This record gives sequence, structure tokens and C-alpha cells, in this order.
Amino acid sequence: MKIVIVGGVAAGASAATKARRTNESAQIILFEQGEYVSFANCGLPYYVGGTIPKRDSLLVVREELFRKRYNIDVRVLSQVTKINRDRKTITVFDRKNNTTYEESYDKLIIATGARPFVLPFLKDCKNSYTCFTLYDVDRIKEDFAKKHVKKAVVIGAGYIGMELAEQLCEIGLDCTIIELKESILPQFDKEMTNPILDTLTTKGIKVKTGISVTDAKIEDGVAKKLVLSNGEEIECDAVFQTAGVIPNVELAREAGLEVNRGIVVNSKMQTSDPDIYAAGDAVEVRSIVTGTNVWIPLAGPANKQGRVAGCNAAGGDLEFKDVVGSSIIKVFDWALAKVGLSENECKSLGLDYNVTIVHPLHHAGYYPGGKQLTIKLMFDNKTGRIYGAEVVGKEGVDKRADVIATAIYAGLTVFDLENLDLVYAPPFSSAKDPVIMAGMTAANILRGEIKNILPDRVYELLDNKEYFILDVRTPEEYEFGHIKGAVNIPVDDLRGRINELPRDKKIIAYCGVGFRSYHACLILKANGFDCFNMSGGWTSWRMYYPDLVE
Amino acid sequence: MKIVIVGGVAAGASAATKARRTNESAQIILFEQGEYVSFANCGLPYYVGGTIPKRDSLLVVREELFRKRYNIDVRVLSQVTKINRDRKTITVFDRKNNTTYEESYDKLIIATGARPFVLPFLKDCKNSYTCFTLYDVDRIKEDFAKKHVKKAVVIGAGYIGMELAEQLCEIGLDCTIIELKESILPQFDKEMTNPILDTLTTKGIKVKTGISVTDAKIEDGVAKKLVLSNGEEIECDAVFQTAGVIPNVELAREAGLEVNRGIVVNSKMQTSDPDIYAAGDAVEVRSIVTGTNVWIPLAGPANKQGRVAGCNAAGGDLEFKDVVGSSIIKVFDWALAKVGLSENECKSLGLDYNVTIVHPLHHAGYYPGGKQLTIKLMFDNKTGRIYGAEVVGKEGVDKRADVIATAIYAGLTVFDLENLDLVYAPPFSSAKDPVIMAGMTAANILRGEIKNILPDRVYELLDNKEYFILDVRTPEEYEFGHIKGAVNIPVDDLRGRINELPRDKKIIAYCGVGFRSYHACLILKANGFDCFNMSGGWTSWRMYYPDLVE
Ligand SMILES: Cc1cc2nc3c(=O)[nH]c(=O)nc-3n(C[C@H](O)[C@H](O)[C@H](O)COP(=O)(O)OP(=O)(O)OC[C@H]3O[C@@H](n4cnc5c(N)ncnc54)[C@H](O)[C@@H]3O)c2cc1C
Ligand SMILES: Cc1cc2nc3c(=O)[nH]c(=O)nc-3n(C[C@H](O)[C@H](O)[C@H](O)COP(=O)(O)OP(=O)(O)OC[C@H]3O[C@@H](n4cnc5c(N)ncnc54)[C@H](O)[C@@H]3O)c2cc1C
Ligand SMILES: CC(C)(COP(=O)(O)OP(=O)(O)OC[C@H]1O[C@@H](n2cnc3c(N)ncnc32)[C@H](O)[C@@H]1OP(=O)(O)O)[C@@H](O)C(=O)NCCC(=O)NCCS
Ligand SMILES: CC(C)(COP(=O)(O)OP(=O)(O)OC[C@H]1O[C@@H](n2cnc3c(N)ncnc32)[C@H](O)[C@@H]1OP(=O)(O)O)[C@@H](O)C(=O)NCCC(=O)NCCS
Ligand SMILES: [Ca+2]
Ligand SMILES: [Ca+2]
Repeated sequence: MKIVIVGGVAAGASAATKARRTNESAQIILFEQGEYVSFANCGLPYYVGGTIPKRDSLLVVREELFRKRYNIDVRVLSQVTKINRDRKTITVFDRKNNTTYEESYDKLIIATGARPFVLPFLKDCKNSYTCFTLYDVDRIKEDFAKKHVKKAVVIGAGYIGMELAEQLCEIGLDCTIIELKESILPQFDKEMTNPILDTLTTKGIKVKTGISVTDAKIEDGVAKKLVLSNGEEIECDAVFQTAGVIPNVELAREAGLEVNRGIVVNSKMQTSDPDIYAAGDAVEVRSIVTGTNVWIPLAGPANKQGRVAGCNAAGGDLEFKDVVGSSIIKVFDWALAKVGLSENECKSLGLDYNVTIVHPLHHAGYYPGGKQLTIKLMFDNKTGRIYGAEVVGKEGVDKRADVIATAIYAGLTVFDLENLDLVYAPPFSSAKDPVIMAGMTAANILRGEIKNILPDRVYELLDNKEYFILDVRTPEEYEFGHIKGAVNIPVDDLRGRINELPRDKKIIAYCGVGFRSYHACLILKANGFDCFNMSGGWTSWRMYYPDLVE
Repeated sequence: MKIVIVGGVAAGASAATKARRTNESAQIILFEQGEYVSFANCGLPYYVGGTIPKRDSLLVVREELFRKRYNIDVRVLSQVTKINRDRKTITVFDRKNNTTYEESYDKLIIATGARPFVLPFLKDCKNSYTCFTLYDVDRIKEDFAKKHVKKAVVIGAGYIGMELAEQLCEIGLDCTIIELKESILPQFDKEMTNPILDTLTTKGIKVKTGISVTDAKIEDGVAKKLVLSNGEEIECDAVFQTAGVIPNVELAREAGLEVNRGIVVNSKMQTSDPDIYAAGDAVEVRSIVTGTNVWIPLAGPANKQGRVAGCNAAGGDLEFKDVVGSSIIKVFDWALAKVGLSENECKSLGLDYNVTIVHPLHHAGYYPGGKQLTIKLMFDNKTGRIYGAEVVGKEGVDKRADVIATAIYAGLTVFDLENLDLVYAPPFSSAKDPVIMAGMTAANILRGEIKNILPDRVYELLDNKEYFILDVRTPEEYEFGHIKGAVNIPVDDLRGRINELPRDKKIIAYCGVGFRSYHACLILKANGFDCFNMSGGWTSWRMYYPDLVE
């Protein structure tokens, strides 16, 4: 049995070790076009910024160990240029010796990953960088040591761009981020990223969204200025291209395998050719949430898929389950996570969804150090099945995201979320954990106990005379800032002042986080009013409209 | 509609507010025998130790707010002494005015909680304390301010005892813990608590397990010395009684309601009398894991049950789902969590279970600051259904516990755990999260890929000639400490030295955490050996047998 693997990092290296564990006697060859196998891609930005001080830490499993422990024939600097399915061989270009040869396989695993998208006009610039390989970061580190680099421009505010911008800022660079979409981290609903945008600004990072880089002023192969879609020109000592990644599917496509955006595989990670498996950033897999294929270029799925592919190729039997789509990013002291769908995604899929937003502390309020976090939960408007969640905050974000990811994986509903039995002691959570709070508020909506409304809808209704906006906070809170046109009646006075409210209008109530206005709505409802609770209250409003002054 | 609630803290106060939210016009009366409603029981030890500096923080919802916002008639210092089901009234003893009266109800909610177990011979000692109410901690704080208190003895090393001991140590007391059972935090399997025991010792806390307090030398109402079951006598300035809690079920029992250990309720939190609901520490509920009734005196269930009881009593319709049994405790920089069953519990229930132990870092190894955590996962030996888990470590413990709690709630198996799609970025996790690692190792056992063995079984086999113990770590690691009689062949040399192993014996392999020995076992298996992997390796061994010298 001869197993050949193309690509030697997350999926490929995982496939190789698992193939060996599954089959002690198989011949296993791992081809990698780069110089290194099994390196920590996800650590690269942190090495650039010195958070990870030692380059060595990035080398997870060394070539040497693949040989000794796993008896795997590792061939680096070896680019696979063709799959010859007719004779079950691959064509390999040996970059070291500049030679080409064919290698046969019984089972082939394609783990070619993805590559960064690069603006054509910056392609060969001496001061243009990607952050994708050890070669890339070595080049960055060397140039930083040699040249005077002060002005950095990061093109693309996705995960890698944001991590890199943070790290560049940490080492003192003057940093500008340019993002084509309307907001940073565009995988997220905009309001969830606004707290982070605020911190970026505080840190001195300039952020330009809704703008693209259209050209560059290049002198001696050095990009001196970038030309933006708004006509602006900005100076740069170094340009970082983090405007997305492209799956490396050409090999597969040319071999006639079924490829959409990514290579199509079944749950065994088998391509349309049963002797060829594929895994990692090069494949697409099915979403648990939508039931359709999605392309999720992330390390968790890549490693698990590689394991499944390696096992099955070697004669074992493993299955890769549908994905939730879970991701997280740290930006300075913020964490922002997403599991399943964003609201935007629910909307564009035409789902009949509803949303709740809560802002509880990450642990008991009476225990010092609690940090507020925001959970935005999307769910089916009839069944309560969880579609997705976004979580932002400074502590405990990953926990809530993972709990909801597990709930989505299991097909749970918001009626389950409100009943979860989670661990509680004051340093870790509240008796009603934030996830449970999100579940309760969602379930209340579906049970018809409360009608909720999101800030963006309230914004649209600001001048609508059929609606009356009621601020149920204290006068002090109201004075400090409120929604234009809102009338203030504190919740605790509401029963006595109910006659001040117009009987002919719909009431939109809000408070600090939605808790008091929820109660206000219940009182109003009992008194015959048609009332909406603005989800997450003033805190949500400020996330949606941080720049609105009133 | 008149709703009467007995007990005004976690379950009772939750029931009251939820009843109001469900029914704006009901009359709601909340009876509390103590001075305060809605206080943070769980914060009490932290107030004693000053971690929570302000007493005020412990008052979650004030009497005043219950009146104003919730229109609830709160009656403190009012002890309910009898339930008169025949005429649907309760008898109330007004402690302030020393009077007794009857109050009628349409629906009654019993939320009487639990009380601390107190050793009879210490009952009236001036320097004996419980830590259960604000009155208790006020007394502690006052006495600490007035008297010279240096030597503290904590009786009972459960959650409250341990939190209290930590806090007493933080304020400089000389602290001794006495625990009847064989180990501290006896809800857990012993080895999971050993790292904490070690820290207690380092902090100067003396821990005596397997020992009870049998008597006291009392002078002028002050306990000067405690007499222990081993004959020892220890001096004490202050004694803290944290040796367990007893459910307050007498009212219910005397009223003829069905009571086992706790009051019996259905999923609506209804007792055997449909007009009487019960919630909190006074009730027992069904376990998702075992399907039998369990008594879980914790705040999470209490609050959720109170909510359900309050809703249903007020005419709503909510259901309380079966519990997982989830808890966590912080002890100095350790966190220790449990969800579902411990191994001991699996054993005593006679379940056909298996166990895996893993010790991964709480986040990616190449990102600085990763802390090792230990997950011990119990699962059905055939189906892989998760029975329970214990997690100990310094970071990320609560997250892993909550993910597994959610998995148990959803009835997932270890085959699901290995497939969870959890959020990953280097500061938060690894591409294969510790929970996924636990899932993979468990699933491998059930798939028959590897046979595992726990340290305590290995210990029993130490002198058994049919077994050969193989240490596959490096010679350096081996020299530093190893299991008695183990022979060292590093995993990476194993293929070449396989003839050094006895063909007529079963091999028990171990390494640092179980990963290398897993691979070693696979190599040996492929070569015809019958091989067992010691789960969690040397790290587990040291947890099981910290004092064993070799
Ligand atoms: C800077 C950065 C940060 C990231 N951070 C995170 C994070 O925090 N969380 C997360 O989940 N994911 C993160 N990712 C994504 C994650 O690294 C990828 O999803 C994962 O590495 C994909 O694994 P893969 O094996 O499919 O591809 P890769 O790891 O990219 O490996 C593919 C390999 O195949 C080789 N190859 C391609 N074509 C050929 C060929 N024809 N012949 C031979 N070799 C070939 C390539 O050289 C490459 O080394 C990050 C990625 C980067 C670059
Ligand atoms: C120090 C301490 C730390 C804790 N830490 C945690 C933790 O970290 N995590 C966790 O989950 N749980 C913790 N708990 C447990 C948690 O506080 C309880 O599970 C929860 O409070 C139970 O709620 P309950 O309403 O049933 O009972 P309680 O909150 O105890 O309230 C019951 C109330 O009923 C009153 N009452 C009783 N009988 C009568 C009567 N006949 N008439 C009038 N009133 C009556 C009592 O005075 C009492 O105030 C802790 C408890 C303590 C004491
Ligand atoms: C490291 C790499 C080669 C995978 O190697 P691996 O041998 O699968 O090792 P892992 O550390 O992932 O361990 C997983 C395996 O060890 C087993 N294992 C882990 N801990 C164990 C323990 N304590 N006891 C027994 N088995 C254990 C798991 O069950 C699993 O084996 P299985 O697949 O046969 O079930 C691959 O992930 C890689 O190259 N990573 C770097 C690149 C990368 O991931 N980039 C993106 C993120 S930065
Ligand atoms: C505070 C206490 C009275 C419960 O009060 P509560 O009114 O239920 O308030 P909570 O803060 O728990 O909030 C939960 C309610 O607010 C709603 N809510 C919370 N945040 C919301 C938001 N942002 N928008 C809308 N609704 C919100 C929830 O849906 C839930 O309402 P529901 O039960 O009708 O679904 C009770 O828990 C208590 O006394 N606690 C102290 C004692 C104690 O718990 N001790 C043990 C632990 S220390
Ligand atoms: Ca509020
Ligand atoms: Ca090891």
C-alpha cells in the first residue's frame, strides 16, 4: 500500500501521521513545495510581532521526527505539478535539483491548502509582503531589521490582516488598514466589530473601510504610495497583503475531479475519484446549519479532515461530520467569535430568523473583575433552532462561542439553551450564564411573551409617527445620552405613569441592556399596549450607532 | 390569583420575579425567615476574605426593588412554620413582632433551600461559625475585628469549605482543613484533586483527610481544641462548619407532600399537590445521565427551577429539563470542574464505563502562556455516550467543562466530541481543542484501535509477572522519575529494538502524557504484541501517586 500526500502542513501532515497510525506497514510519501512541513501558520503574525519570540516554536513536527517516529518519506521543495489518474501517478518538480519525476500511488491525498490573494500591481514589489509561510515572515523580519520601516499598510481587514495589524502596532509601526467591505472583519455583522474598531483607533491604527487599493506608485520596485478607490494616496514603507485566500484546487480540477469553490468530497473525505482523498483549505464541506456546501479555510477543520483522509486512505474508517463554522480572533484585549451564521448570512439566505442580543457580565457581578460581553444569537423564528451566534468581549468569549457551537452541532434550540446546565461559581460565570440568558431572551420571543426589535429597525422608525420611543432608564442615564425623540419614564415609575403613554401608538421600549425594558413591556402589554423591546437596549444602540450624537 | 413563596433567595426570589413577569395582576407574597432576600450566598466566602470588599455587593435585588419594580409583598423575618393544605393557607411566625398568623394561597412555592450541617457539640460555641447567610459573615467579620483569631479550623473540604479555607489563608490565618472522606473535594475522583492538595500544602494550609472531629474541649462557651478521630487534638481560635448541607424539607414532609432526599417534583416543578410548587436546594430532580433522581444543591439549577416554578404558578407554562450535574470551584490559581458523573460514581452505579485522561495545553503550544489542563472523561464502554468529565487546570477549565456539559445535555457521544467544531485561534485553543483530544482518545478506545489502562490498575499489576512495563520516553525523562520496574525504550527507537520486548507478556506502555505511548502501542500491535496504553502517562501517574518515590 502506497499513500502519497500533496501538501505538508495542517491537513497534509495530519493525514500523514494518522495514515501511519492506521497502517504501520504502508509506504507514505509527503510532498511539500515549500521548505517546511508542519509549521504553525496561525502563529506567523505573532512571530512577526515578537509575541512568539522564537522561530523554532513555529515548527510543530520536524522533518526528522516524521522520518524517525512515523517512518514517513518527507520530500520538501517538491512541487506536485500534475495528477495522472490514468496511470495513478503524480508528476513532481524537484525544486532543489530542478528535475521532474513521476511517483505512483495507491491512494492520493490532496492537501494543497490555499494561497493569499495578491494584487497584481504589487506582485513583485520589494516592500510588499504576504504572511503565509515561514519564508514570508523571515523576509519581513529581515527587512524590518535592515530597512527603516515606519509606515505599514495592511490591505484587508480579515482575520490575518487584523492579527497582523495588531502585531505591527505592538512593535511601534504606524499602521493603516484598508478594507474593501463596509466594516472590518466583514465575516461579522458590523455592530459586533465596532467596539474593536474603537480600540484600533485608540491605539492609533487608521482604518479605512469601504475603500479598495486600485494602484500603486512604484519606484525601483518599491511601492512608495498606494492609490485608493476614493482618490486618496497613502505613503507606505511596507505593504501587507491580507485580502483573502484562494483555494489551491488547480491540481484537482486539471485532474478532472469535481471542484466547486473547493474540491468536493464525501464524509470520508473522498473526492469524485475513490482513490483520491482531499482535506483542508482546498476542500469544501457541508454546513450543519444550512445543509449546503461551504468553504471554511480554518485549521480546526483542516486538521480533523486530514486525520479522516489519512485514516481512510490507509484502510481505516473515519467520518468527518458537517461543520458549524466556528472562528475567533483576538484583537488587543478583545475577543470576537462567530459560530454558525451571522445575521447578514441569515438574511442573504432568506431564512425566517430572529435575533436576540444580550450584554451580561462574563461572571457574577458581585465578584470583582466581571467584564461585559455581547452575545448576538440568531435562531429559527418558528422552531428556535440555533442558526448562529457572534460573541464579543474581553473575557469568556471563547467559552460562550464553544458552548453555542456544541449546541448547534447537536441541533439544539433556544429552548435548550435556556436549560443548559453549565458550571457556576462566581469567578467563572453567573447562576444564569450569558448563554442561558441569550437562550431565555430568545425563547421568550418565540413563546410570544415579548416582541423584540433590533436597533437598525428602530433607526428606520425614528421619524415614524406610529411609534413612540420609551426610555425606561433613570433620568441620569437618559441625560447622559438617549435615542432621539425618546421619552423618559423610569421602569419603576411606569405603573403609576402609564397614562402618559399614547394609546394609539406602538411603543418601543429600551433601557441599558434590555432587561428593564423587557419588564416595562410586560407591564405595558398587561395594560393593553402593543410594545416592542429593543434588544440589548442602549448598549446595543451604541454598538450599532457609535457615531450618532444626541 | 394569590401566589405565596416560602424562601426569598435564589429559587424563591427567581420565582417571585418570574411570577410577576408572567402575571402582572397576581398578588405575590414572598416570605423569608432571615433578614435579607436575594443575597449572593455564593459570594459569602469571598466577602469573608475581602476579595469582595463591599458588603453591599452581596445584596443582589433589594427589598425595595421587589416592591417598586415587581410589586411584590416581601416579608422578611417571617418564618413559615406550617402548610395547611386542607384550607390552602400557611402559618407564619413573625419574628419581629413575635406573632403568628395564617396567610392563604392559591398557589404556593416552596423554596426553603438547605441549611448547613452542624456538629451538635459545637452548636452553641462562640467561636464556631457557619458561612451560609449575611448574618453568618457579619458575625465572622465582627469577631475577626474584635478578637485575636489566628488558628482557623475548617471542618469539611467540600466546595464551601475549600473556598473559605482559601480566603482565610489569603487574610493570613493559620488554617487546618479536616475532611472525613479520603480526599478533599470528595465529589471528585481523588487524583483530580491532588494538584490542589499540593498547592494547599505549599500555601501552608494543613489538610487532614480520612479524619473526623469527634469532640471539642470547650471553655466558657469557646471551643479551645478539637478532638479528632485519630486521637489528635488541635487548637483553634475559630471553627468553620462546612461539612455539608441538609435540605429544608420538613415543611413539605409535614404537609404530606412526597419527599425523598429532596421534595419530589415533576418537570413543571409541581409537587405531589398540584397547587404547590417547589424549587431549589429543597427539591430533587432527574439526572440526564442516570435517569434517576438526584439532589444537586447548586445555584444554577435553583435559579432556573425557581423561574419555572414562578412561571407555572402564575399561569404560564415552562418546563425544567433534567440536569447534567455541573459544578466548578476555584482554589487559589486552580480551577476544578465536574460535569455528569465522576469515575467513582460510574463505578458505584455499576455502569459499563471506560475512561480516558488527557493533559493538553489550554491553548496552542507555540503561543506563550499555555497552561496544562487535565480532562478525565467517562463514557459508555459500548455506545460512547458521555457519562461525565472532570477537568482541572489553571486556565480554560470552565470552557471545557461547559462544552462537555452541553454535549451531555444533548446526549452526544465521544464520536461527536472528536468532531466538534470549536473556535480556534492560538490565544484561545489548539486546532484540536483539549475536548476534541479527549474525544479522539476515547473514540480510539471504543474503535478498538488502542487498549487503555488507568494508573490505578497499573499499580495493581506492578508485581504481576504477566505484564511488562515499557517507558517510551527519552532516557533523560526516564532518569528523572519512572514507574518501578519499567524498562526504557524511547518510542523513536522502538521499531529497531522490538526484539528486546518479551513476546510472552502483555505490554503496558507509557510516556509523558500518553501520546507517544499511543504510537508505541500501535507499532507493537502491528508487530503482534498485546499492548496497553496508560492513559495520560507519567503525568497521570503523578496525579494518582504523588507521594510514590522511585
Ligand atoms: C497567518 C495565518 C493565520 C491563521 N490563523 C488561523 C487561526 O487563528 N485559526 C484557524 O483556524 N486558522 C487559521 N489560519 C488558517 C489555517 O492555517 C489553515 O486553515 C490551515 O493551515 C489549512 O491547512 P491546509 O493543510 O489545508 O493548508 P496549508 O496549511 O496552507 O498547507 C498546504 C500546503 O500545501 C503546499 N502545497 C500546495 N500546493 C502544492 C503542490 N502542488 N505541491 C506540493 N505542495 C503544495 C503548500 O506549500 C502548503 O504548505 C491562519 C492562516 C494563516 C496564514
Ligand atoms: C457559601 C456558599 C457558597 C456557594 N457557592 C456556590 C457556587 O459557587 N455555585 C453554586 O452553584 N452554588 C453555590 N452555593 C449554593 C447556592 O447558593 C444554593 O444552591 C442556592 O442558593 C439554593 O437556592 P435556594 O433558593 O434553594 O436556597 P437558598 O438560597 O438557601 O434560600 C432559601 C431561603 O429560604 C429561607 N427559608 C427556609 N425555610 C424557611 C421558612 N420555613 N420560612 C421562611 N423562609 C425560609 C432561608 O432562610 C433561605 O434564605 C453556595 C452556597 C453557599 C452557602
Ligand atoms: C501536528 C500534526 C502533524 C498532527 O499530528 P498528530 O500526530 O495528529 O498529533 P496531534 O498532536 O494532533 O495528536 C492527535 C493524535 O494523538 C492522539 N493523542 C493525543 N493526545 C493523546 C494522549 N494523551 N493519549 C493518547 N493519544 C493521544 C489523538 O488521539 C490523535 O490520534 P488519532 O488521530 O490517531 O486519534 C499537524 O496537526 C500539523 O502539522 N500541525 C501544524 C500545522 C497546523 O496545524 N497549522 C494550522 C494551525 S497553526
Ligand atoms: C436576581 C434574582 C432575583 C432573579 O431575578 P430575575 O428577575 O429573574 O433576573 P435575572 O437577572 O436572573 O434575569 C433573568 C430574566 O431577565 C431576562 N433578561 C435578562 N437580560 C435581558 C435582556 N438583556 N433583555 C431582555 N430580557 C433579559 C431574562 O430573560 C429573564 O427573564 P425571564 O425569566 O422572564 O425569561 C435571583 O436570581 C436572586 O435572588 N439571586 C440572588 C441569589 C442567588 O441567586 N444566590 C445563588 C447564587 S449567588
Ligand atoms: Ca437595563
Ligand atoms: Ca508523551
